[in-house]
Amino acid sequence: MSAAAESRRSIVLLSGGLDSATALAMAQAAGYDCRALCIDYGQRHAAELRAAEQVARHRGAPLSILKFDLTQIGGSALTDPAVAVPETPTTGIPATYVPARNTIFLALALGVAETVDATAIHIGVNAVDYSGYPDCRPQYIEAFRALAALATRAGVDGRAPRIETPLISLSKAEIIRRGAQLGVDYSMTVSCYQADASGRACGRCDSCRLRREGFAAAGVPDPTRYQNPAG
Amino acid sequence: MSAAAESRRSIVLLSGGLDSATALAMAQAAGYDCRALCIDYGQRHAAELRAAEQVARHRGAPLSILKFDLTQIGGSALTDPAVAVPETPTTGIPATYVPARNTIFLALALGVAETVDATAIHIGVNAVDYSGYPDCRPQYIEAFRALAALATRAGVDGRAPRIETPLISLSKAEIIRRGAQLGVDYSMTVSCYQADASGRACGRCDSCRLRREGFAAAGVPDPTRYQNPAG
Repeated sequence: MSAAAESRRSIVLLSGGLDSATALAMAQAAGYDCRALCIDYGQRHAAELRAAEQVARHRGAPLSILKFDLTQIGGSALTDPAVAVPETPTTGIPATYVPARNTIFLALALGVAETVDATAIHIGVNAVDYSGYPDCRPQYIEAFRALAALATRAGVDGRAPRIETPLISLSKAEIIRRGAQLGVDYSMTVSCYQADASGRACGRCDSCRLRREGFAAAGVPDPTRYQNPAG
Repeated sequence: MSAAAESRRSIVLLSGGLDSATALAMAQAAGYDCRALCIDYGQRHAAELRAAEQVARHRGAPLSILKFDLTQIGGSALTDPAVAVPETPTTGIPATYVPARNTIFLALALGVAETVDATAIHIGVNAVDYSGYPDCRPQYIEAFRALAALATRAGVDGRAPRIETPLISLSKAEIIRRGAQLGVDYSMTVSCYQADASGRACGRCDSCRLRREGFAAAGVPDPTRYQNPAG
């Protein structure tokens, strides 16, 4: 690999959802040589992992799936079967919040980035049409940037990876329009917090609601497969 | 559990080494209700895990061992069998550095702290007699403190756990003297980067050297068991 290509290598956190698929496409469009990183954290919606595989293959990005089982920590509707996924809007941070998830994911990406000399990490966090998770906010990302500059050997050498958040200030409709322009195939993605084994969405959770409204506002046909098409 | 006890609950990262055993004793002496957290990250020195179990039992702290296999990331003499542990002093950050390890460990501790409403996290990092790892430095810890205040639901509610580093500015001899005063049984601890299956130390790696010099300087009998007592 040439030095020029090396200087634009990125680790892209890929979940199988709509946002991270778009972040991958945007990172590629920005000229990054992207390696997708998917964390199998024992999430309820395992269909996400297959979606991540499909998206990575479609975008031509090598994918690593790392197994880090956050059900050992629990504390979320996504990692604890005893906690229900809310199906009506809630106030505050919802039960689908996974304690410290983005900090854990970014920490793992930082480790991977160091082993392959990546110069950036892309994460598809969004602070507009989102579920209100604290670790999606711009001030959180800024704090992680400051940490990344100090945390690793690369940081000491002045080569800490940039933490890139291309979606952070976009609406869901803007994300979808941008992704559609870049050829993202959203039929491959799964956003639902309680998708079934074949990746069909519930149509009722917060994530389904944001996704459906986003396609409608973007004027892009919604390819989502629902468990109950009438629902 | 009473509100008073709850307000002093800490997650203590316990590795089985000398430093974290002392940090646990110091957290208990400071009045914290401590829960020990050991990460089984696939480290070369598995004897560490048994040491952590012994130390936690001896100190009366409930222990959770979480399995997060960092050999999936590699990049270190401690997680990649193909990389040798240095046995002579090196300049710069040594091969035993594990990419982003303390960031990953603190992130996991942050998740656990949130699920049990802990008000502190103790980590036995030390920036005096240490191997030069970037994520043991005071400025790194400060950056993680800033992150922790923003990363979680508890942080949003103004209840982010304090990140406590009671050893950070102590010499190894001071750590050992303090631990000995608090009744830490250092014969249970394993510091060696390449201990054998029964926990006997190599006597040659950086960690062995710092430990041996620490006991000598502290004037405390060194209970370390060596693979080759003449070595």
